Amino acid sequence: MPTPCSRIVLASRPQGEPVPENFRLEQASLPDPGPGEVLVRTIWLSLDPYMRGRMDAAKSYAAPVPLGGTMEGGAVAEVLVSNADGIAAGDIVVGRIGWASHGVVRHDELRKVDPNIAPISTALGVLGMPGLTAWVGLNEIGTATADETVVISAATGAVGGLAGQLARARGMRVIGVAGGADKCAYALQELGFDACLDHRAGDARALGQEIRAAAPDGVDLYFENTGGKTLQAVLPAMNDFGRISVCGMIAWYSGQGIDAAPPLPFAWRLILTRRLRVQGFIVTDHTACSGAFMREVVPMVARGTIKFRETVTDGLENAPQAFMGLLKGANFGKQLVRVGADAG
Amino acid sequence: MPTPCSRIVLASRPQGEPVPENFRLEQASLPDPGPGEVLVRTIWLSLDPYMRGRMDAAKSYAAPVPLGGTMEGGAVAEVLVSNADGIAAGDIVVGRIGWASHGVVRHDELRKVDPNIAPISTALGVLGMPGLTAWVGLNEIGTATADETVVISAATGAVGGLAGQLARARGMRVIGVAGGADKCAYALQELGFDACLDHRAGDARALGQEIRAAAPDGVDLYFENTGGKTLQAVLPAMNDFGRISVCGMIAWYSGQGIDAAPPLPFAWRLILTRRLRVQGFIVTDHTACSGAFMREVVPMVARGTIKFRETVTDGLENAPQAFMGLLKGANFGKQLVRVGADAG
Repeated sequence: MPTPCSRIVLASRPQGEPVPENFRLEQASLPDPGPGEVLVRTIWLSLDPYMRGRMDAAKSYAAPVPLGGTMEGGAVAEVLVSNADGIAAGDIVVGRIGWASHGVVRHDELRKVDPNIAPISTALGVLGMPGLTAWVGLNEIGTATADETVVISAATGAVGGLAGQLARARGMRVIGVAGGADKCAYALQELGFDACLDHRAGDARALGQEIRAAAPDGVDLYFENTGGKTLQAVLPAMNDFGRISVCGMIAWYSGQGIDAAPPLPFAWRLILTRRLRVQGFIVTDHTACSGAFMREVVPMVARGTIKFRETVTDGLENAPQAFMGLLKGANFGKQLVRVGADAG
Repeated sequence: MPTPCSRIVLASRPQGEPVPENFRLEQASLPDPGPGEVLVRTIWLSLDPYMRGRMDAAKSYAAPVPLGGTMEGGAVAEVLVSNADGIAAGDIVVGRIGWASHGVVRHDELRKVDPNIAPISTALGVLGMPGLTAWVGLNEIGTATADETVVISAATGAVGGLAGQLARARGMRVIGVAGGADKCAYALQELGFDACLDHRAGDARALGQEIRAAAPDGVDLYFENTGGKTLQAVLPAMNDFGRISVCGMIAWYSGQGIDAAPPLPFAWRLILTRRLRVQGFIVTDHTACSGAFMREVVPMVARGTIKFRETVTDGLENAPQAFMGLLKGANFGKQLVRVGADAG
C-alpha cells in the first residue's frame, strides 16, 4: 500500500545565493518497505550549511543532488513500518531521510534515538552531526589544549556553540565571532564564552583589532566555519604553531564576497612564517569518534551544563525559506523544520 | 690583535626585488675571540631564499637584519684561533657566520664538519640545512608514504633535489616542477624523477593539465617551495587527505605576482572539500631530527646514490649578484659563494 509523501526537490541550480525558484514542493507516493527497510515519518528536519554545496553541479566531497531529486538532509523520524530486526514501529530514529515527510530507508542507515536522554531534536544538533563536528574539529583536527586561546566563527551556530562550550570545559580562552549583538550577548551570558565579537559591526581591519584585544596572548586555534571577513581578521592574530580547523566557509558558499577576499599569498605567508597547520575535515570521515563524543557530551547535556538553542520553522513547505535564511545567519542556534507532530 | 674582515651589509631595504644598491661591501676588523669563542675564516658561504625575508623591516619568524648590519647566512669555515674545548685551529666548522670573510663565533653555535665524509661544501647543502629541510618536509610534515605521488616545486634546488630523491627511495611517484628545459632534463636523467614540468613553458592552466597528466592517480603530497603559478596549478590536482608541506614561496618573496594570485577562497574550498592538511615549517624548529636525517642521508651521499649539484660564485663581493640571481632561479642546484681557499 503506497504511502503519500511530500518532498522538496531541487528545481534548478542556484546562481549565487539560492532563491525560492530553486526549490519545488512535490507530492509523491512511497513504495512499501522491502526486506531490511523501514518506513518512517519525519518529525524534525535538520537544515545545515553544507546543503548549499549539494545544490551545485560540481562534485564537492559528495555527489550533487540531481535536478528533480529530493534535497538531502538528516532528520529525526518515527518508524511506521519496520522490516528490520531491532527496529520496531514507534521507535525514534535519525538518518538521512531528506527534505521529505516520509521515507523508506535501509535499517543500517538509521540510528535509534533514546527519547529519555534529551529532546529527540538534539539528535540533529548538539548530540548529532553538528555536535560530533564540533568535537572532531576541536580535538582531532585542532588538538585543543588547556590554557590556549581559540576563536570560533559562527559562534552561536549548532557547531560553534558546542565547540565553544567544550573548549571552555577544557580550560581554553574562548572568543566567539557572530553576526549581531543579540548572538554575541547569548554567547557571553548563556554559553559562557570569554568574549564574542560582532562581525557586522565593522570591517575586517576593525574585527582584527578586536580579536587582538580579546586575545592578548594571540590565537592558538581557529575553528573556521565562515571564511570571509572573519578569516581575514583572525589569520594575522594566529600564534606560531597555531592550528586552523577548516569546517565550513558559509560566507563563500554562494560565491559572494570572493572578489573581496585577500589573495592567496596573504594566508600562505602566515602559514609559513607562523608554522600554522590548516586542515579541512568532513565529519563523516570521523564517525569512529562517535563513541568518545557521546560518552563525553551526553552526560553534559543531561546535566544541563551544555546549553543549546534551536530555531524552529513549522512545515516542510517552509524549509526553503528557512534554509535561505540560514545561509545569511537569520537562524539563532540549530535550524530545524518541524515536519510532523512529535511522538508521544 | 684585530683581524681584518670583509663583509656585506644591508645598505637599504628592497622595494620588491633586491637591487645592487641594497648591499654594501665593507672592510672592518674583528676583535680577538673571548673565552668560549673561536675566530674563523669563511671558505663557503651559503645563499638561500629565506634571506630575502631578513631584508624586510617586518618581523617574519626571525628578526630582520638591521640597516648597516651584516647579511645573515650559514657558512663553512676554517678555525684560525680557538678559545673553546673540543675545537682546534684547522678544524672545519659550519655555522651562522654571515656574509663575511671572517667571524668570531661562540663555540656552541658551530658544528664540526668531517671532511672525510663528503666535500665540506655539502654541510651547506645536501648534508646541511637544505638537506634537513627536505627530510623534515617530506617525513615530519608531509608524512610521505610509499606508492603515493608527490609534486616538488623548485625541483632542482638544494631542497627540492634531495626531497625528490628521498621520495623516490621511499617508493613514491615524484613529479618535479622547475624553471627551464635543462633543469627538467637534469631532474629526470640525473635525479631520477618520474616527471619534471617546466613552469616557464605555459600558464597555470597549462601547467595544471600537465600535472594531471603526470599524476594520473592525483597528488598526495605537495612539497611547496615556490607559491605562484605552481601552487595554483597543483592545488586542484590534490587528492582527498592530501598534504602540503609549506617550506617556501620564492615566487612571492619580493611581492611580485601577488596580484595575479587567485583569491584565498580558491585554496580554502579545496582544503575543506579535499580535507587537505597544509602545514608551514621552518627547519630550525626541527633540529631534533638531525640525527635521523644524518643516519639516513650520509650513507646515501657517501655511496653516491644521492646526487647534488652546486652553482659556485667566486668572491664575497659577488654574493649580492648571485643572491639576486637565486631569487630568479638563475642558479642550478645549491648556490654557494667561494669566499676563501678550501682547506688542505
